[in-house]
Amino acid sequence: MNNFMIRDENALYFEVGYSCDNALFIAFGDNGYFLTDGRYETEAKENLKHDKYVISLIVSRDLIRSARAILKKHEKSTLIYNPQEFSVFFFERLKNNIKINFIPKPNFHQEKRMVKTADEIALLEHSQRLNFKAFMQFAKFLNKKGKDSTESFLHYKAQGFLSKKGVYDLSFNPIVGINGNAAKPHALPSNDKLHKGDLLLFDAGLKYKRYCSDMTRTGFLGKNGISFCKEQRFLDSTLQKIYDVVLKAQEVAIKGAKPGMLASEVDTSARNVIEKAGFGKYFVHSTGHGIGLDIHELPNISPRSKIILQEGMVFSIEPGIYIPNYYGVRIEDLVVLESKGARIIGETS
Amino acid sequence: MNNFMIRDENALYFEVGYSCDNALFIAFGDNGYFLTDGRYETEAKENLKHDKYVISLIVSRDLIRSARAILKKHEKSTLIYNPQEFSVFFFERLKNNIKINFIPKPNFHQEKRMVKTADEIALLEHSQRLNFKAFMQFAKFLNKKGKDSTESFLHYKAQGFLSKKGVYDLSFNPIVGINGNAAKPHALPSNDKLHKGDLLLFDAGLKYKRYCSDMTRTGFLGKNGISFCKEQRFLDSTLQKIYDVVLKAQEVAIKGAKPGMLASEVDTSARNVIEKAGFGKYFVHSTGHGIGLDIHELPNISPRSKIILQEGMVFSIEPGIYIPNYYGVRIEDLVVLESKGARIIGETS
Repeated sequence: MNNFMIRDENALYFEVGYSCDNALFIAFGDNGYFLTDGRYETEAKENLKHDKYVISLIVSRDLIRSARAILKKHEKSTLIYNPQEFSVFFFERLKNNIKINFIPKPNFHQEKRMVKTADEIALLEHSQRLNFKAFMQFAKFLNKKGKDSTESFLHYKAQGFLSKKGVYDLSFNPIVGINGNAAKPHALPSNDKLHKGDLLLFDAGLKYKRYCSDMTRTGFLGKNGISFCKEQRFLDSTLQKIYDVVLKAQEVAIKGAKPGMLASEVDTSARNVIEKAGFGKYFVHSTGHGIGLDIHELPNISPRSKIILQEGMVFSIEPGIYIPNYYGVRIEDLVVLESKGARIIGETS
Repeated sequence: MNNFMIRDENALYFEVGYSCDNALFIAFGDNGYFLTDGRYETEAKENLKHDKYVISLIVSRDLIRSARAILKKHEKSTLIYNPQEFSVFFFERLKNNIKINFIPKPNFHQEKRMVKTADEIALLEHSQRLNFKAFMQFAKFLNKKGKDSTESFLHYKAQGFLSKKGVYDLSFNPIVGINGNAAKPHALPSNDKLHKGDLLLFDAGLKYKRYCSDMTRTGFLGKNGISFCKEQRFLDSTLQKIYDVVLKAQEVAIKGAKPGMLASEVDTSARNVIEKAGFGKYFVHSTGHGIGLDIHELPNISPRSKIILQEGMVFSIEPGIYIPNYYGVRIEDLVVLESKGARIIGETS
């Protein structure tokens, strides 16, 4: 990749070690231009890393006008951008009468970040370890005081454990779903209360030094309380069957994933287990997604993904079965792809 | 406004009573088309309101393709859209080879929502009342247990009071800034601790039935604790002077605001007080912003705003003075414009 421009905060952070919510970075070869407004001047000066680019910091009240002045100097160049990242408003003003060959490349920067370095893998692993600690604390709380709480309140408490009361940011709005609510794709917390004998689906993650974690467990609140371990015993035998099918699908997908495979083949391996058990139509999403600075990155582990898996990729494996108005089950871990196969990262049981 | 298309969740909610994160609404006169994917079909069916439009619900895996089919049927029409709301990726695919006169109108939908109905004003007022309750609870907590807490922890605790432990969504990420941190525009919570004699700036809001509240208080943690009332006594006499100037600027702007004025004139009235006191260069933002379903709506109360104020507009008045590495002071209330002038909404002291 030679010349490109980015606005996305995680892309900015990856390239220059700093981001804010009003910035544009343009790279022409090794020359970088970081444009932002006066509010962020001091922070930008202190934090911009100049190891990849010789960066000029440009402080401006009108980013687009200042960017146009830079582009003018580089006319006749090509410049890659992600058309999903730029609004029509911004881009139309930017490019007007500028003789640059703008090349739209959706997700070009996520492609660049798809294979993680050892340092990044260590950060992701640490993030997932902290995440699992929060799962354990949440289970402990549920066992002591969770009964008869609403989903909304459990959702609030979970955020406290995940953020360690404000120390960490969350990587997404966690999902806390009881029984049939766990089968809803749009699982906003309700006022339904948790009772003994209920299923609880918990999908959550946090950020450690900006790197995301993500995990899902589906637990049963029995007379001995709840755990977020992968072994679960439900009273309802159909539910137990569903759970075991999801767990098997996850295990098969993780065991089968190898460098050189298509991402779609990993999806197929999980999907086959669920389809053979007769629940195919209740597995309504992809098997997994890449993760890094963004909660959803490449590779997609989906039926249509043509990406060839490589060592150093980190992604989730999270099959699920969702029976409307009954139960939803999902089990999710993160794996890193190594030479011999996928290794689950973080503590997980 | 005749024909238009929107994707923004608050615009969708305003027009059809329902929104989700993957939808497009197109209106040709009284005929509306609500496009979303299968995940949201049930919710959309249950919640779409048909009072303004005869709405066809279109469930599709490919929103753009389905939207193109609709647009094809209305060729030669004009269609308004907000170019800030559509990515280059989405819009280019949507419009390709469609003979429609697309008219870009930045913020056209916020303009439509600029004057609030009595019902909306009641919701905003209730939201702000709940917000002020959270301010009072936070002050109580600070007096009991707040000392020696980090900003991060106070930020976490504040979220609990604002959300009422998960009942309400927040209207934005609250700002909790101690002393010099209150002067930083990008005030992310730090690990600095709150001590006796410190200044604490708290800027926060929540959502009640999707309507936002927003308030800022700057308090002094003295030997009798802290309050978020507008009367404040600081030990530092320069700080006291700054505080009094900000308070006066706010009072003057609120008293002066009348229907028929330019929004910029309200900004000027606050700015003049601060400039005359010699702190002009430390008041680095606009005097206020409209509020409603979005936390920032029209009218902007800024030096360049050409909007003529009308009865029923609701906006913030929030002058501030920020001295780097020293202190930051801001005082913010929400007002509704009535025939005789601006009335502060919610309980505020």
